[in-house]
Amino acid sequence: MILDLQIDHDSEIPVYRQIAEAIRAAATAGRLESGGRLPPTRDLARQLGVNRNTVVAAYDLLASEGRVHSHTGRGTFLAERIEAADRSANDEDDEPWFTGFTPAVDAAALGGLQSIYRLVLSREGISFAGSYPAAEMIPIDAIRGAFDQVLRRIGSPVLGYGPTAGYPSLRETIARRMRDAGSTVDTGDLLVTNGAQQAVELVFRTFLDRGDAAVIEEPTYTGALSVLGSLGARPIAVPMDDDGMRPDLLEIALQRHRPRLIYLQPTFQNPTTRVMSEARRREILRVATRYRCPVVEDDWAGELRFEGPTLPTLHAIDGGRHVIYLSTFSKKLAPGLRVGWVCAPPVVLERLVELKRVEDCGTSLLLQAALDRFVRDGGLDEHLARIRPAYLERRDCMLRALRKYFPQGAEWTLPQGGLFLWLTLPSDVDGDALFDAARQNGVLYSRGDLFHSDGSGTQAMRLAYSAATPDEIESGIKTIGGLIERRGDRTEATGQETIDAMPIL
Amino acid sequence: MILDLQIDHDSEIPVYRQIAEAIRAAATAGRLESGGRLPPTRDLARQLGVNRNTVVAAYDLLASEGRVHSHTGRGTFLAERIEAADRSANDEDDEPWFTGFTPAVDAAALGGLQSIYRLVLSREGISFAGSYPAAEMIPIDAIRGAFDQVLRRIGSPVLGYGPTAGYPSLRETIARRMRDAGSTVDTGDLLVTNGAQQAVELVFRTFLDRGDAAVIEEPTYTGALSVLGSLGARPIAVPMDDDGMRPDLLEIALQRHRPRLIYLQPTFQNPTTRVMSEARRREILRVATRYRCPVVEDDWAGELRFEGPTLPTLHAIDGGRHVIYLSTFSKKLAPGLRVGWVCAPPVVLERLVELKRVEDCGTSLLLQAALDRFVRDGGLDEHLARIRPAYLERRDCMLRALRKYFPQGAEWTLPQGGLFLWLTLPSDVDGDALFDAARQNGVLYSRGDLFHSDGSGTQAMRLAYSAATPDEIESGIKTIGGLIERRGDRTEATGQETIDAMPIL
Repeated sequence: MILDLQIDHDSEIPVYRQIAEAIRAAATAGRLESGGRLPPTRDLARQLGVNRNTVVAAYDLLASEGRVHSHTGRGTFLAERIEAADRSANDEDDEPWFTGFTPAVDAAALGGLQSIYRLVLSREGISFAGSYPAAEMIPIDAIRGAFDQVLRRIGSPVLGYGPTAGYPSLRETIARRMRDAGSTVDTGDLLVTNGAQQAVELVFRTFLDRGDAAVIEEPTYTGALSVLGSLGARPIAVPMDDDGMRPDLLEIALQRHRPRLIYLQPTFQNPTTRVMSEARRREILRVATRYRCPVVEDDWAGELRFEGPTLPTLHAIDGGRHVIYLSTFSKKLAPGLRVGWVCAPPVVLERLVELKRVEDCGTSLLLQAALDRFVRDGGLDEHLARIRPAYLERRDCMLRALRKYFPQGAEWTLPQGGLFLWLTLPSDVDGDALFDAARQNGVLYSRGDLFHSDGSGTQAMRLAYSAATPDEIESGIKTIGGLIERRGDRTEATGQETIDAMPIL
Repeated sequence: MILDLQIDHDSEIPVYRQIAEAIRAAATAGRLESGGRLPPTRDLARQLGVNRNTVVAAYDLLASEGRVHSHTGRGTFLAERIEAADRSANDEDDEPWFTGFTPAVDAAALGGLQSIYRLVLSREGISFAGSYPAAEMIPIDAIRGAFDQVLRRIGSPVLGYGPTAGYPSLRETIARRMRDAGSTVDTGDLLVTNGAQQAVELVFRTFLDRGDAAVIEEPTYTGALSVLGSLGARPIAVPMDDDGMRPDLLEIALQRHRPRLIYLQPTFQNPTTRVMSEARRREILRVATRYRCPVVEDDWAGELRFEGPTLPTLHAIDGGRHVIYLSTFSKKLAPGLRVGWVCAPPVVLERLVELKRVEDCGTSLLLQAALDRFVRDGGLDEHLARIRPAYLERRDCMLRALRKYFPQGAEWTLPQGGLFLWLTLPSDVDGDALFDAARQNGVLYSRGDLFHSDGSGTQAMRLAYSAATPDEIESGIKTIGGLIERRGDRTEATGQETIDAMPIL
């Protein structure tokens, strides 16, 4: 049997799924005889250098899809045609034990995002997909120095357990920075998390039970949609205008759906880059107050403004009374540290800390202490001063390329900060086909449906300028523009396709 | 008004609860006039240097307990006597918005453990409470060197996002070590987590929905009980004998309760230190197989054996087919790294990775890369070779002290590895009173009820020898022994009492 199969152990696509996919492909391509016998699991496992159980899982998956049939003692055979699922496996002992999972991890709940997360990317290609900071600008030496210092000067205490809420000195540092930005906040109001993702997860899990409603902007952050999916919560999308979420429609949503929270990114909203005006911020808070609905403010990008006046956060306007605020060092500095935080009123924070303890006992003290050292030594402010103009330059570079290579009818935003812009394709361009064609031509971006809870949005694209060089930006935009010109016709793929195992965010 | 109140911002007891507790204490001590007016929230906030909202939250809490009454425009007054809850706060705008939380964080679900976690500890005292490795033996320089190396040699890639399942090279390293211990495992079978706690949490959350049953040993790991509580799952305790969980009773539990998993610590069970015999391991797996019930093996202590022959893990015996295995570097090396892992069959691992992505997008790459460097350079094996005899010595020191200072009728285990021993007090000793007396005399340990789901077990104590010096062990055991001699009579407290903000584990 010819299985054209390269196992990629670093991939996020599990090996058993890679095997199943290869068999599917071989069958479709006619390289496997319809009704023919698949190799015994033991043999294929040896050939591929994997566990037999992995092959069993692959065959099980195909059986569940009706693509193969297993006959105890005789082996596994390719189906004559696609039929209804048949869960019987090779022999009784190999029947799957693991058939029922909780809704929290049910494939149905996460499947949509899961498949999108697993974007295929040519590693030699150009990626505008991830909302990543510029890797080459991360101040590695200063970070290295901070780790060195805390391990030399503090030593074993930062290698032990610490307060679940976070390293006290880092919490002080964060509180001071938030106060400088106009917030009312004590050290005790803060919980350090593993990035903003965990902050969102803990907050949502504290308020949202199965079936509960949550107001969101749409489109919105993919990771927030994932959390809603895992909790079985109902996203209630409230439309935005140029000033941000519309308060009149918010009020209707609050009346109709009785949501448990309102999730907002008022500054450089991901993915639309929209900034909520100050008047609108006050209006949204007034509506929320009227209905006593907590507001969750995700301010991941607030410090990444390179143009225009800074607006007060919702948390600052509200005095921290009913706004739960969260942010992260991932985008400002380095995602690999996985340090974010959440600031909440005491009665909420206490519960977030409990849930954090249940989830992982607290974020690494060493990471927190080193980050604190780095920030206190002025490293973060220096870094921000350096990256802001660099991002401005890259944004301008992308705008120039768009004007040059994109057709009439394409519309894009002009962000004054953050890591990406948001673009809407003319209606006569097939967004799905363009995405596939771009990918095959070695250019990746985030298609708009990644940010919608209902699969819509394929006419939009989020283009991150932050992690690409000016040359890459010019070249990648030119490629996409050319494909649009040819209306998404497929061209020959360039480069080896491998799996992008990275989150998009 | 005299409020004898020291706010401890580093404490895990939220500030508003500290304030409420101080008011309660002042009222009880007669330092506050019954029916008298409390200071305006604004004034008390200024006096204490905290947010006004924090004081409002404290008054709200007291109001919810019926200890104070708020009258709009007039202020907040101490109740004449304890009355039914009155949720009205100072003015309408300050009424609590945050009244409904999900079962996942409901105080009722976590409250029992929460209060125990927040043990009061004299910082000048001696602690046998935490299952912590010896801090002074952590190889700080080698760890520092590993961070230095990966930041110098690899640089920005370890400061970026990585595969959610973990840093590929660390997963390889872990897989190799597991294979050396007899397991069948590929790199792709592993997910790196934030310590064993997150491994337990992800696995339980994958299988246990509200009301689902899970078989546990009782007593068992507090953190596992917390997770069960947060999920609303039902712990089904199956008794152990000297060889471990009783298979006959397990079978009855499987028939009666249809549990979704069996959670076991076969080696140096926390807290009983029991080791499941090899024959019993096979028997338990046979019973689990008969009922197709997945087994979760928590092997946090497997590599911490300092005496006696090593037994095969359940995962090794089973061939990794139906056993989900988890462990951690926290106890072997340094808790402050927060790195653990889980090994599971493909169909389970895939879901664990999805849930990990939802919870925090993956563990810090930098931590993983540095740990991998450290382990590959032989640092972990060297460290294990050094700490095993040290823990043996400390265990023996504790055994000598127990024989010398503890009364007839006290019974303790003789662990061949791990970080603590387990002791049962004679029935005429009041375990509750002894715990309080020991704490007031500056000696802390983990009382047995911490490891029970039903509050029982107060006659037992877990005494960790790992993180105390021989002198501390001698002195601490002598103090407890003396208190038992006096049958738990309280003596004058020594030292300043402050709050232990650390998890006990």
